[in-house]
Amino acid sequence: MVRIGIIGSEGRMGRALVQAIADAGQEYSGGADKGGDVTALAQASDVLVDFSAPAALQSNLDAATSAGTALVIGTTGLEAAHHVAIDIAGQTMAVLQTGNTSLGVTLLAHLVREAASRLGDAWDIEIVEMHHRMKVDAPSGTALLLGQAAADARGIDLASHRESGRSGNTGPRARGAVGFAALRGGTVAGDHSVIFAGDEERITLSHNAENRMIFARGAVQAAAWLVGKPAGRYTMEQVLGL
Amino acid sequence: MVRIGIIGSEGRMGRALVQAIADAGQEYSGGADKGGDVTALAQASDVLVDFSAPAALQSNLDAATSAGTALVIGTTGLEAAHHVAIDIAGQTMAVLQTGNTSLGVTLLAHLVREAASRLGDAWDIEIVEMHHRMKVDAPSGTALLLGQAAADARGIDLASHRESGRSGNTGPRARGAVGFAALRGGTVAGDHSVIFAGDEERITLSHNAENRMIFARGAVQAAAWLVGKPAGRYTMEQVLGL
Amino acid sequence: MVRIGIIGSEGRMGRALVQAIADAGQEYSGGADKGGDVTALAQASDVLVDFSAPAALQSNLDAATSAGTALVIGTTGLEAAHHVAIDIAGQTMAVLQTGNTSLGVTLLAHLVREAASRLGDAWDIEIVEMHHRMKVDAPSGTALLLGQAAADARGIDLASHRESGRSGNTGPRARGAVGFAALRGGTVAGDHSVIFAGDEERITLSHNAENRMIFARGAVQAAAWLVGKPAGRYTMEQVLGL
Amino acid sequence: MVRIGIIGSEGRMGRALVQAIADAGQEYSGGADKGGDVTALAQASDVLVDFSAPAALQSNLDAATSAGTALVIGTTGLEAAHHVAIDIAGQTMAVLQTGNTSLGVTLLAHLVREAASRLGDAWDIEIVEMHHRMKVDAPSGTALLLGQAAADARGIDLASHRESGRSGNTGPRARGAVGFAALRGGTVAGDHSVIFAGDEERITLSHNAENRMIFARGAVQAAAWLVGKPAGRYTMEQVLGL
Repeated sequence: MVRIGIIGSEGRMGRALVQAIADAGQEYSGGADKGGDVTALAQASDVLVDFSAPAALQSNLDAATSAGTALVIGTTGLEAAHHVAIDIAGQTMAVLQTGNTSLGVTLLAHLVREAASRLGDAWDIEIVEMHHRMKVDAPSGTALLLGQAAADARGIDLASHRESGRSGNTGPRARGAVGFAALRGGTVAGDHSVIFAGDEERITLSHNAENRMIFARGAVQAAAWLVGKPAGRYTMEQVLGL
Repeated sequence: MVRIGIIGSEGRMGRALVQAIADAGQEYSGGADKGGDVTALAQASDVLVDFSAPAALQSNLDAATSAGTALVIGTTGLEAAHHVAIDIAGQTMAVLQTGNTSLGVTLLAHLVREAASRLGDAWDIEIVEMHHRMKVDAPSGTALLLGQAAADARGIDLASHRESGRSGNTGPRARGAVGFAALRGGTVAGDHSVIFAGDEERITLSHNAENRMIFARGAVQAAAWLVGKPAGRYTMEQVLGL
Repeated sequence: MVRIGIIGSEGRMGRALVQAIADAGQEYSGGADKGGDVTALAQASDVLVDFSAPAALQSNLDAATSAGTALVIGTTGLEAAHHVAIDIAGQTMAVLQTGNTSLGVTLLAHLVREAASRLGDAWDIEIVEMHHRMKVDAPSGTALLLGQAAADARGIDLASHRESGRSGNTGPRARGAVGFAALRGGTVAGDHSVIFAGDEERITLSHNAENRMIFARGAVQAAAWLVGKPAGRYTMEQVLGL
Repeated sequence: MVRIGIIGSEGRMGRALVQAIADAGQEYSGGADKGGDVTALAQASDVLVDFSAPAALQSNLDAATSAGTALVIGTTGLEAAHHVAIDIAGQTMAVLQTGNTSLGVTLLAHLVREAASRLGDAWDIEIVEMHHRMKVDAPSGTALLLGQAAADARGIDLASHRESGRSGNTGPRARGAVGFAALRGGTVAGDHSVIFAGDEERITLSHNAENRMIFARGAVQAAAWLVGKPAGRYTMEQVLGL
């Protein structure tokens, strides 16, 4: 039984994580919220799961490193400096960072990579996602993760090939572009589709999340997998053996 | 047998119209293209179908009026002044103008109106469309026609409630907004979906066009229906008896 | 505030109803389960909601009639004799019976009726649904309700036009048939699509339920609407004002 | 420039092949239809494409073998004995047989194999397809090809795990089953979806064919690829380098 601590245990995701730990038959070693003692939590845990905020990332990494505890990072909105900090921490501890902890999305990204590497740029790539009406950013982090997977497989830079939010006189589609469209409404937990549109045929790879529990479940599975691994920076793909 | 003349007969749509006239067992009375004599064509026809360009609209209306010939207008990109000209012509001739001549889209717009009038603004409306890679504007005229149907049914102004091309930090969705998203790729003839997203449920009304022939077929059906009607401005809804 | 009693309060649907009554700010007047006293519950309630079993229907109708309490019936698997009993009860009490208490599905059925009455039988009707892996019957009651709406609008008998579960050498599709297909898997709460497939175009009308709460919410809304109505047999369409 | 001959050139597929050969800049060396001399055609061609009938397969194989000409077989409805004959021919000539010549479907089958090998049987597999109203068999050969890909990846026998055409009291879904559903209507060229339905999430892999031209194009690409290959039995996967 693995002891799992949660940084940010009182939010909606934190409560789902506590439930997922129980469902998986693992041990919940406690939570640290604003002002909480992450170092003490790290010492009482085999692995920490962090869904808090980018601003807390460095101190969370420090606490985990000093206690020799593994760390799963699901926080979104990370910037380049945060990734550098994770790389550095990965030299002395086992850390796994991901934009989406769902096993289904992780597999989808793998399939997108596979498809994009086989289909030339005569196949236009479009990514469309739908989320609930309260979501404040577009496109979703998961849509960007899927776009990145496609760009990597094609060997292109996503930033310079990205077309988000078409509106007005756009002109014909640029060859090699990766398009993004964001739908918002209702209480949708998260739907994503990656469309490869060729001449007179289309391949569409989709993921549909019924609720947030799948993200908690995947994070707990990643946490259990990470315990005992040597120092390094790991990915969800590795948890799935992809 | 109705005699149907085509203004703009040499383009892709014109050729489809010639085919559709033959398929429907009607008589093709000829075409007028750039520099062609529309007045002579009008005199030889019971009804004209115009898929040419906004700049030619006034002279086409004049030719049809003087010959007493009915006119179906499928030209896109019309502005307010064009609509005024059509209204004026409608006082002395039978004229039908529409943003989409497909019978399926016309029915879809009717269903959207029906749904929007029953569902309050706790149901978020999103319209997503996909077209081929050569299309130069977004959202499509048909998407706007569907959004207008929803706005009319709700008694709101579309322009001030429209959200097109979300990208970046958008904040939560505005209550009552009508969202538009445009996908481009491959050779897609035209897919449209209107999503009503409520709390924990969604209703989606979609139309899928396999190719452009349906637009030609609907235009020919509208033309045959229009012959013999008294002066007035008609709609596709009336052709379907909606 | 309306007092709502639940027949069958201990099952999954019963618990959702208790929650929905609280969410709607109504009063939960109690539940009656196997061996419980429905008559006493009826006397303490303004309206009862019954999601129990066909075998209990007659005694539930009797209890509601004798107490002068309105009754919403969401029980599935009813047969002809049950409907006769409901008709008889409706002569002296307000009763509403439906195969699906979701407001979204009720509206969808209305739209299906509207579409089917406008589109001739050159438009093939196919109904496809997906439900979780534990569902034991196919097609779903809701799929049949939607098929019935289409058949009514076309003025045909559903039983003799129904094609369920195609497999093997089926031959070409029969003109005027209404096809049904059932997908089963995962934890899907309920997806339904009605497809009108014409020549080179399709109209698809879909409903997606994220979880069972929408059925409880619609039942509570129907219950509140039914209180104070004169004797008669009512429908969900009337609750929505369709 | 490769010389391509067509066995069965006068049908709808044959005409599409002639067009596809021209589009690809290859040379059309002629067609052999009922009673035609396939041996002469084989001698005048670098490769033959056969979309005729199972009954003609053996003589077509003989003609190709004797002339030393490669052969692409897209004929459907083959039985075990035909496959033995193809295996034998493959010992002395280059032959490629497939249930679907579209590059998109071939890639989809590859992705299905990839997904099925990663996801355990807690993920229910459902395959749904839609075709035009004239199609006489269900499920489609392509649906079966996709189901076979999933079964192979899971190491199970498809025949004993297949559930086609659910209707009536089916009971709960069998663990490990592969479900098939067939929709028929309109003029749909061919839509296929493979759904992996897990707990609270779904992955869906789809292919949409706008018209039959993609099958002709893929067959011509396969034919050009096959010319010059050593004796052996090849697959569409190899044409795509999968």
